[in-house]
Amino acid sequence: MAVTSLQAPDIARQTTKGILQDVSAIQPVILCGGGGTRLWPVSRVAVPKPFLPLVSEETLFEQAIRRVVGDDRFAAPMVVAGTDHAGLIIAQLGDTPGARLVIEPAARNTAPAIALAAALLPAETVMLVCPSDHHIADAVAFRSAALAAAALARDDYLVSFGIAADRPETGYGYLQRGEPLPGGFAIRRFVEKPDLARAQEYLASGEYSWNGGIFVFRAGHLLDELAAHRPEMARLVAEAVAGGRDEGICFYPAPAPFAAIAGDSIDYAVMENTDRAAMVPADMGWSDIGNWAALSDALAGEADPNGNIARGQVDFAQCRNVFVMSDGPHVSALGLEGVCIIVSGNEVLVTTREGAQAVGKLPGAVNQ
Amino acid sequence: MAVTSLQAPDIARQTTKGILQDVSAIQPVILCGGGGTRLWPVSRVAVPKPFLPLVSEETLFEQAIRRVVGDDRFAAPMVVAGTDHAGLIIAQLGDTPGARLVIEPAARNTAPAIALAAALLPAETVMLVCPSDHHIADAVAFRSAALAAAALARDDYLVSFGIAADRPETGYGYLQRGEPLPGGFAIRRFVEKPDLARAQEYLASGEYSWNGGIFVFRAGHLLDELAAHRPEMARLVAEAVAGGRDEGICFYPAPAPFAAIAGDSIDYAVMENTDRAAMVPADMGWSDIGNWAALSDALAGEADPNGNIARGQVDFAQCRNVFVMSDGPHVSALGLEGVCIIVSGNEVLVTTREGAQAVGKLPGAVNQ
Repeated sequence: MAVTSLQAPDIARQTTKGILQDVSAIQPVILCGGGGTRLWPVSRVAVPKPFLPLVSEETLFEQAIRRVVGDDRFAAPMVVAGTDHAGLIIAQLGDTPGARLVIEPAARNTAPAIALAAALLPAETVMLVCPSDHHIADAVAFRSAALAAAALARDDYLVSFGIAADRPETGYGYLQRGEPLPGGFAIRRFVEKPDLARAQEYLASGEYSWNGGIFVFRAGHLLDELAAHRPEMARLVAEAVAGGRDEGICFYPAPAPFAAIAGDSIDYAVMENTDRAAMVPADMGWSDIGNWAALSDALAGEADPNGNIARGQVDFAQCRNVFVMSDGPHVSALGLEGVCIIVSGNEVLVTTREGAQAVGKLPGAVNQ
Repeated sequence: MAVTSLQAPDIARQTTKGILQDVSAIQPVILCGGGGTRLWPVSRVAVPKPFLPLVSEETLFEQAIRRVVGDDRFAAPMVVAGTDHAGLIIAQLGDTPGARLVIEPAARNTAPAIALAAALLPAETVMLVCPSDHHIADAVAFRSAALAAAALARDDYLVSFGIAADRPETGYGYLQRGEPLPGGFAIRRFVEKPDLARAQEYLASGEYSWNGGIFVFRAGHLLDELAAHRPEMARLVAEAVAGGRDEGICFYPAPAPFAAIAGDSIDYAVMENTDRAAMVPADMGWSDIGNWAALSDALAGEADPNGNIARGQVDFAQCRNVFVMSDGPHVSALGLEGVCIIVSGNEVLVTTREGAQAVGKLPGAVNQ
């Protein structure tokens, strides 16, 4: 499989910030896994979070594509997704030139998905791996961080975006910065989701960033590291690609070897094991839109003077920081503070901002 | 207009409590005025609160009728209502034997409505005037208080039920007890809705009851007092009755004189002006179901161990004292405390218990 835009020679230039950046085409790899049940009842199994117009009139997936399309420093996107959503993806890709779609035969977490893409690319290709269901307000800052990361990737680093932390968030993993590198830092330590006290320490120290699940590395380097740390996974991915087939813009890996993989995240399988982990700082208005409170934060620009946000026909009375999204019925909110009200189809969800993390465990979300 | 059951002779007997009670037929007069917008969106202009099955499978109106039907100490009920709801009333009266319906040509508050009924009854008839939209859990206690009140009414008192106050409620008027009378007390003072500090004083003093809007008096006595304190209203009511007509079980007063009445409540027009005001204590599980929080209190027997009450398909998670009523959509409530969620037709209302008082002022309720 040849991706012509990657055949352009690498070109290096000195930016105004004095950081050596590589401006040849970077290969975006958009991951469409995950159910997103924490945004139930709007996000459902049939049409999950990436494919919904949550923040703007574009879906999160369309935004992820638009973030890299039309900029010749980036190649046409490669999308990795499960069979169930291929139709949605092809529809939302529209006429994106050169886009390709890799269909996962089974859901095996991020490491096998990324390895599939890597195995389909020339070894020297720099991959920019992005979730399809995050919001990034500042696309220019995103692309700038990607270019810095690509330069590090060419220097044999496996790079993670370090998202600027602006609150003691307990829902994300953290990256602790080590020695400075050109355009970024070595990663001293990966930290699992902390408790609040520890998250407050991290924020105060200034040494920590959020691990946003955005990665940059050379395809061949990623596969070498995978072979070192997860040899069986690397072998089965290679087998799945060797036995796979093209059909239009889609690539179908061989189902049997892929299904045999023990799934794992790219963090656990590779990033936490390599001694070449690096990070580039990224302050780009990022949100994983991980729950209704996070979506309401991402929409803060639409809030009324009391912090209330309405999507649909809504009246607020004596409310503060209330978020309402309705696909039809008129909603009246009275005397509430810090509550999210979601009306979708035959489901009504009312949750505190604090409760929003647990929406995916509600019977309605579990028993869809 | 002859009401045959009222022609039975009065019979007095000594009860086990030693109170002289009159057991001849008391004439129930059920008032169906009022919009009940504080129970919007379930209570709407077309089908307001009395005609909805809020507390049980019976509507509040049906409960008001059943409370006095089938007990020969009470005559067949007389209902006073506006034109708009005559159809609902006739349907919900079903085959109640002997029931009559007085149609108000216009809404003029309670004094003219009650005076209409009084003018249609023999002067010696004891009327028991009840709102149609209150809940009374203990019908036996209700009837017992009515009998005590009837005895006082025959002794030329205008009697108000004094509802046992069990909390410092600021939404009701209060009655201060004076000298004891057989089966009740003189009323020393009528008090308007107090502020919280004053309501707490009233509750602590033990001298105050809630004014529940339930009255007992002789028809002729009421009309005499009305003529003394509101002569113009008395004159116009008499004229409306004289010019009225019967049609089936309905009586239609003449519209022009009735519409010319300056509306007023029975409290303002008569009760606060007479020197014959009395009260009978009534501890009967009363609620005016004045808002969603009050309804939820009336349904406390249905609460789960966390105080949550569900009408419809509902899941609660980490909730306390949450009330949900849905006419269809499934509702999920997460992390909430003291919130009412109402789903009705194309309207969703979410309010705190405190906010429930203000529901009638919401744009959705005002602009039905």
